[in-house]
Amino acid sequence: MTIEQKIKHYKKIIDQELVNLPVPDYPSGLYEPIKYSLATTGKRIRPILLLIVGEGFGATQADILPAALALEVLHTYTLVHDDIMDNDDTRRGIATVHKKWNVNTAILSGDGLNTLAFRLLMDTKSKNIREIGIEFTNGMLEICEGQALDLSFETTINVSTEQYMEMISKKTGRLIGMACKIGALTAGCSNKIIENLFIFGIKIGQAFQIQDDLLEITSSEEKMGKSLSSDFASGKKTYPLLYTLSNMSEDKKIKFLSFLKKNMYNRKEVQKKFRESGSIDKTKDLIKKLLNEAHEHLDVCPGAIKKELLGIMKFIQKRQF
Amino acid sequence: MTIEQKIKHYKKIIDQELVNLPVPDYPSGLYEPIKYSLATTGKRIRPILLLIVGEGFGATQADILPAALALEVLHTYTLVHDDIMDNDDTRRGIATVHKKWNVNTAILSGDGLNTLAFRLLMDTKSKNIREIGIEFTNGMLEICEGQALDLSFETTINVSTEQYMEMISKKTGRLIGMACKIGALTAGCSNKIIENLFIFGIKIGQAFQIQDDLLEITSSEEKMGKSLSSDFASGKKTYPLLYTLSNMSEDKKIKFLSFLKKNMYNRKEVQKKFRESGSIDKTKDLIKKLLNEAHEHLDVCPGAIKKELLGIMKFIQKRQF
Repeated sequence: MTIEQKIKHYKKIIDQELVNLPVPDYPSGLYEPIKYSLATTGKRIRPILLLIVGEGFGATQADILPAALALEVLHTYTLVHDDIMDNDDTRRGIATVHKKWNVNTAILSGDGLNTLAFRLLMDTKSKNIREIGIEFTNGMLEICEGQALDLSFETTINVSTEQYMEMISKKTGRLIGMACKIGALTAGCSNKIIENLFIFGIKIGQAFQIQDDLLEITSSEEKMGKSLSSDFASGKKTYPLLYTLSNMSEDKKIKFLSFLKKNMYNRKEVQKKFRESGSIDKTKDLIKKLLNEAHEHLDVCPGAIKKELLGIMKFIQKRQF
Repeated sequence: MTIEQKIKHYKKIIDQELVNLPVPDYPSGLYEPIKYSLATTGKRIRPILLLIVGEGFGATQADILPAALALEVLHTYTLVHDDIMDNDDTRRGIATVHKKWNVNTAILSGDGLNTLAFRLLMDTKSKNIREIGIEFTNGMLEICEGQALDLSFETTINVSTEQYMEMISKKTGRLIGMACKIGALTAGCSNKIIENLFIFGIKIGQAFQIQDDLLEITSSEEKMGKSLSSDFASGKKTYPLLYTLSNMSEDKKIKFLSFLKKNMYNRKEVQKKFRESGSIDKTKDLIKKLLNEAHEHLDVCPGAIKKELLGIMKFIQKRQF
C-alpha cells in the first residue's frame, strides 16, 4: 500500500467510526449539533498519525482506535468553541454550530464533545492508560493556552515572531505532537522514541499552521472557503503579517493594521504588500526549515515507519487549501 | 469529631488545596479567571462526600484527594459555562467570569477548568482508575444533558414534573451521585454499596435542587444574592412553578408565565400565588420524600458511615440560602 492509499484507508475507518459512535438522540439540543460536527469531513490527520505510529510500533488497531477517535473528537470540540470566539460563520464550507443554532448550543455541544473525547480515551487498551490520560489532559490545557495567546494577540500591536511560534506550537503543534506521542505510548515505545516523535509532531504542526497562514494570503477566496478579510478584521496575527510588520515604523504598523482591519485593501493590494516586504519568501523558507527539523527527529525510527511518517508530512505539504 | 466539625475540617483542606494547585500565571488570559473561579468559597459538598465515603471505606486520603479536587473543579467549570448560558451577572455575590472579563474568556477558562478536572482525576491512586475515569466522563456527559434539557424547558410551556425530575437528576443529582460512587470506587467497595450510594447521592442532589427552587421563592432577595426575577425572566422552570402551572388552564398558564417573564408581579404577589396553589406545601413534601428515599439507600453501609452521611444530608437540609 502506498502512503496515499494508507491515509485513505485509515480516513475511511475513522469517518465510519465517528458516524457510528453510540451518540444518543435525546436530548436533541445537545446531541444534534454534536453529530453535525462529527459528520463534517476533515482530513483526520491527527488520528491517522496516532494509528500509523501505534500500529507501526506493534500496537493492535482495535486497542488504540478509541484513542485515535478521542483525538479527532477533541479537535472537533476545539473547532466548535474557537468558531464562537473568532465569530466565524462557516467551517469547511458549512455553517458553524453557533450560527446554525446559537452560542449557548455551541458552548454546550463543545463541552459535550470535550467530554466524549475523554470518554473515548478511557476505552483505549494499554498498560500506559494513566500516562496517556496525563498526556491527553496536559495537551488539552496547552491548546487552551495557545487559544488564550491567539486571542490576546488580536489586541496587541507588537507581537514577536518568537511569541507567535510559541502560540502555534501550543494551539496547533501540540495536538499533532500528542497524536504521535500517544501512538508511541500505546505501543510501549522507549522514552527516546516518544520524545522525538512528539517534537516531530509539533514541528509539522507549526509548519502546517504557517502554511495555512500563507495560503490565507496567496490563495483565492473560493479555495479557502472564507474571505480574506475575516482574519484581518478580527486583528488575528499570522507569521507573514508579523514579518511584514517587523520592517515597518510604529506609525506605519498602526496604519497598516487599521487598513487591514477596515478591509480597505483588496486582495491584490494585500498580496503585493506582502510580496514586496519579502514576507512570502521568508515564510516559505521557514516552512521548509521546520519540515527539515521535523525530518531529523525521525532518525530514531525504524526505516519503514520513518518512510510512512515522511509520506504523511509530504501529503500535508502538498495540500493546496 | 462531630459531623459539622468534620465537614469544616474537610472544607479547609479542599479550600487550601484548590488555592495551592500548581496553576501557572501565564498566559493570564486563561489562568487569571481560572484562579478567580477556584478561589470563590463554595460549600465543597461534593469533594467532602467523596472523601467521607472513600476514607470511611478504607481508602487513604492522599490517594483520593485528587479525585475530590477533580469533582470540585468540574463543578466550577459547569458554573462558569452555565453562567454564560443563563446570562447571570453574579455568583456567590461576586461578578461571574463572563461579566468580569468577557464571554470568550469565560468559554476558554471553563474549558481549561474542565481539562484541569480530568488532569487532577488522573492523579488519583486506585486500581479502579479506568472505572473512575469512565464514571467521571459518563457523569460529565449527563450533566451536559441536564443543562440541554434545562435550556430547552425555558422555551417550553408544558413541562411535566417527571421531565423536571429527570433534568435535575442529570444536572444536579448526578454530580453528587458521582461523588459518592467515585468515593466508593476508590475504596474498592462492592457493586451493591456503590450502586446504593450512587442513588443516595442522586436523591439528595434532587432534594437539594428543589430546596433551592423553593428558597428562590420564599427567601428574601438579599439572602439569595440574586433577584427573584432573573430566573423567571429567562423562562426557567422550577418544581414549585410547574406545580402551580399544573392547576391552571392553558390560557392562564401563558398569561402567568408572561407576567413572570415581564417581572409584573412583586415578590409578595408571587409568594401569595404559589402558596394559594398549594405548591409550597407540595414542594416541601417532595423534598421530605426524596430525603427519606435517600436515607433508605444507606442501609447497606456500616453504622458509622451511615451516621456521617445522614449528618451531611441534614447539614445540607438546614441550609437557609
